[in-house]
This record gives sequence, structure tokens and C-alpha cells, in this order.
Amino acid sequence: MLIQRLSILGVGLIGGSLARALKQAGQCGEVIGCGRNLANLQEGISLGVIDHYTTDPAEAVKAADMVIVAVPLGTMAKMFGAIRDSLSPDAIITDVGSAKATVVEDARRQLGNHLPRFVPGHPIAGTEKSGVAASFAELFEHRRVILTPLPETDPQATAKVVKMWQYTKAEVIEMAVTHHDEVLAATSHLPHVLAYTLVDTLAQLETRTEIFRFAAGGFRDFTRIASSDPTMWHDICVANCEAIVKMIECFSQELTQLTTAIKQNNSDYIYQVFNRAKMARDKFNS
Amino acid sequence: MLIQRLSILGVGLIGGSLARALKQAGQCGEVIGCGRNLANLQEGISLGVIDHYTTDPAEAVKAADMVIVAVPLGTMAKMFGAIRDSLSPDAIITDVGSAKATVVEDARRQLGNHLPRFVPGHPIAGTEKSGVAASFAELFEHRRVILTPLPETDPQATAKVVKMWQYTKAEVIEMAVTHHDEVLAATSHLPHVLAYTLVDTLAQLETRTEIFRFAAGGFRDFTRIASSDPTMWHDICVANCEAIVKMIECFSQELTQLTTAIKQNNSDYIYQVFNRAKMARDKFNS
Repeated sequence: MLIQRLSILGVGLIGGSLARALKQAGQCGEVIGCGRNLANLQEGISLGVIDHYTTDPAEAVKAADMVIVAVPLGTMAKMFGAIRDSLSPDAIITDVGSAKATVVEDARRQLGNHLPRFVPGHPIAGTEKSGVAASFAELFEHRRVILTPLPETDPQATAKVVKMWQYTKAEVIEMAVTHHDEVLAATSHLPHVLAYTLVDTLAQLETRTEIFRFAAGGFRDFTRIASSDPTMWHDICVANCEAIVKMIECFSQELTQLTTAIKQNNSDYIYQVFNRAKMARDKFNS
Repeated sequence: MLIQRLSILGVGLIGGSLARALKQAGQCGEVIGCGRNLANLQEGISLGVIDHYTTDPAEAVKAADMVIVAVPLGTMAKMFGAIRDSLSPDAIITDVGSAKATVVEDARRQLGNHLPRFVPGHPIAGTEKSGVAASFAELFEHRRVILTPLPETDPQATAKVVKMWQYTKAEVIEMAVTHHDEVLAATSHLPHVLAYTLVDTLAQLETRTEIFRFAAGGFRDFTRIASSDPTMWHDICVANCEAIVKMIECFSQELTQLTTAIKQNNSDYIYQVFNRAKMARDKFNS
């Protein structure tokens, strides 16, 4: 068994799904959940996702050999500080944050001597739903997990976190912190910003009730991610601010050019953008 | 039986699905398909969607009591002109175009004495796929079809088109032409413009191969509509230019404000946008 005592700080969609997957694989013993929402923690017990719970992070990590920090990015620093003095000397710590530079900074400031056993991580998986009730063991199957180990990270700690994710049937990839944050700004953070902005723009139009009434399947798919947790996404925008703003600016520049083409009835330009996009999207699909 | 001889000009996803649904409901006799792509027409025969085909629109509408014009918006005027002199005196003509003002303009210029039997229509249904192979009889079930009859439209013609769509299990709604074009610019045309722009922006980044490699389910859903037919969407942008540009400008204004908030670390503003959007999207979902 890979993990004797697994501590999940933040028993939501990601933390809950990881606990389920590891239990299902027979790779973890006891699972301790920690959070602030008692109803959610009790649901975690009923669903068999966690075995015990506490609202005290320091308590939750005692005697744990693997600690998963699955809280919003804005809470990472506080969480690292809260657990530092209760961690076992050989405990491995990893996180699931959607941006890595700020988490690494938080860890460097807060984890003290435990830093070499901290392995920054990010599973590229999720749905627009939140909470332990939304978790399921198969969430990570055939998905990618990016680890961004630091120069001082103990290779044995990284190896154990790689193994852990492999038991969830994910593909594990290592990447530099900055590169991770740029790639994710493009493929995940920017789309979320656009979806939230679109839905809020429409919701503020006077005819909003009627507008949503005539929305079809394409709109439903396009805006699904706007149902994601606003606190989590607020934190991502604050944490990965620079890369996200850069991507928004690339996007806005292209949108401005396309708008000019539409205004000027520039058929070639419009068709070329749409056709290039279709080809790229069809290729991604296959 | 509602329709004796149904003529489908443009045997694609929409035209094909309508023929299938009406056949399945036992509400149409012979179906004549018309298009330029012979392989697609032959596939329509093999799939039992159409009974005969021709590449000549004038031929296709002879003796038809119901004519469905399901071609891209940019081809409507030419199609109306091509069929005018071959239409039966009592034939009812309807279309499925995603913008209505230009279709109405085309019909007024081209249909001559047949104008009172032309009922402009738009089924709010579709997928990102094209061609008769993508068609299915259930496409319109529980979806809305908007009709925008003109002051001179014969109410009996409208009534027959309403009945036709009801046999596909769609809900039929009447609306003014301008209102239709504004509502659809918001819920359908703008999202398509944004999806195409996002995918094209990313495809032009140097690291594009890797970028798409790390895209997850949210990205897949968000960009699905960028696989839609570029000719069809080019024509929609040209036809509904004014309403679309207005919506892009509303969206861009809100995106600029959000970008400023992200740059300035204005947490309240960011959270409020995301939270309002989540509430609006969750409500739409329910």
C-alpha cells in the first residue's frame, strides 16, 4: 500500500475524487478529511470518501505520510503555515492548485524544513461542480497531472507523488513552474474568464430572461464553465494575474481585428479566422 | 398527411433532420433533396432521408407543396431567384436561416408573387457537425423554433409551417424580425465569434501543439462550437453584422473592465463578476 494515512485538506471535487481513486486502487489506508464546512465533511463520511474528519488542519496532518492541499489558491499560504509544526518529519506534501508560481512562493515562505518534501502539482481535470458530492473515482482517468518539482525537491518525494497519481490512471508530466502557468492561462484560465464575462454581460442586458430562453445547446456547452466556483476562480485570476492578462490581451487584439473585419464586410478575413479555428479545433478533437 | 411533396434545398444537418422527423411522424410523402454535393445527396438517399435528388433547385421545387430553404444565408437570394418561376402557385416556402432580416430582404426582392406564402423561420437547434450524415430525427425535440411572419404573410401559410414544426416536437414561437436578430446575436452569434477567436488565438501561439495537449474537458466544451461550418458562420456574421458588432462591443467593454480589475488586484470586482455569472448560469441550467 502506497499511503498509510492520507490527509486531505479541502474535501471537494478534486480532493474527494483523489481519495476515492486511491481507496478504489487499494493504495491508501486511513483518510482524514479537513475543511470548514461540517455538512460537506459529514457527507464525505457518508459517501465513504473519508474515514474521519477535523476542522483543524494541524490535527488533520498528524501522523499522515501523504498530505494533499486542495484548497483555493488564496488559502494555500495560511494552510501551509497551519500544518508546518504538526507534519511528520517524513510526510510528503503536494497540492492541486491551478496556478503554481504563487503556491511555490507560499510553500517557500511557510513550509520551513518540510520544503524538500513538497511537490507542487496540478491535475488537469475537473468539472464545473464543487463539493465532495460531485467527486468520483474516475475523474483523473486518462487525464494529465502536471508536477512542477523545485530544485530542492527530494526526488523520492516526487517519485511517490508520481506513483500516487498513476494509481488514479492519470498521465504524469513534469514541467517548469512558469511554463505551467503560461500554458494553463491559455487553455483554462482565459476560457473561464471569457465564459464568466459572456454570461455576466448577457445577464445585465435588459431582456435577459428572454435571452436565456432562446439559448440552445451550443450556448449551454460554451457557458458550462461559468458555473464553476467563483472563489476558486477569483483566486486563480489573482494568483496567475500576469499570464492571464497577457492572454486576455492576445485574445482582445484578435477580437478587435475580427470586429473590424465584420464591420468592413471583409469576407476573406472572417472566413479565414473561422476556417483556421475549425481546423485547429477538429485536430484537437481527434 | 400534412405535406405531399417536400422539397429540401440544402440537405445538411438541419434540412436532413427535418426530413427525417417529418417522415418518422408520417407527415410527408415524397422528399426531394437538392444540393451541389453529389456524394452528400447520395448519402441522403442511402440513409433514407430523401427519396430523390437533383442539383437543380428549379427542378427540386416542381409540384412541391412545402419548400424548405436550408442553405447558408449568403446563398438565400440566389436560391429564391432560382426557384421563383418553378414554384406551384400554392407552395409554401420557409427557411431555417440563423438571421432573419437579410433573408426577409432577399425574399422580398426575389420571390415575387410567392412572398405571401413565404414564412421566415429559424429552429434553435443544431450541433457543430455538418452534412446529411449528422442529421437525426430527434434534433428539434423540446427545442424552440422561431417564426417571423411578415405583414403580408398568409396566416394559413404560417399555420401550416407551425404544424410542420410541431410534428418534430419543437415549440414554435413568433417574434419580430429585428428582435430575433438581436436575441440570437447575444445567445448564439456572439458565443460562436468568441469560440472561433479563442481557438484561432491559441492556434497562432508558438507553443500551440503543447497548449492543446494540456487542454481539459472545460476547454473541449467551451470550444466545441468552433468546429461549426465556417461558411455558414461567415454568412451569419455578414448578415447580422450590426447586432453582432453591438454585442461584441458590450462584451469587450465588460472584458476590459474585468482585465483592469485583475491588473489592479480588485478582488471585490472580480468575485462579483464571477459570482453573478455563476448565479445566472446555474439558473439557466435548472
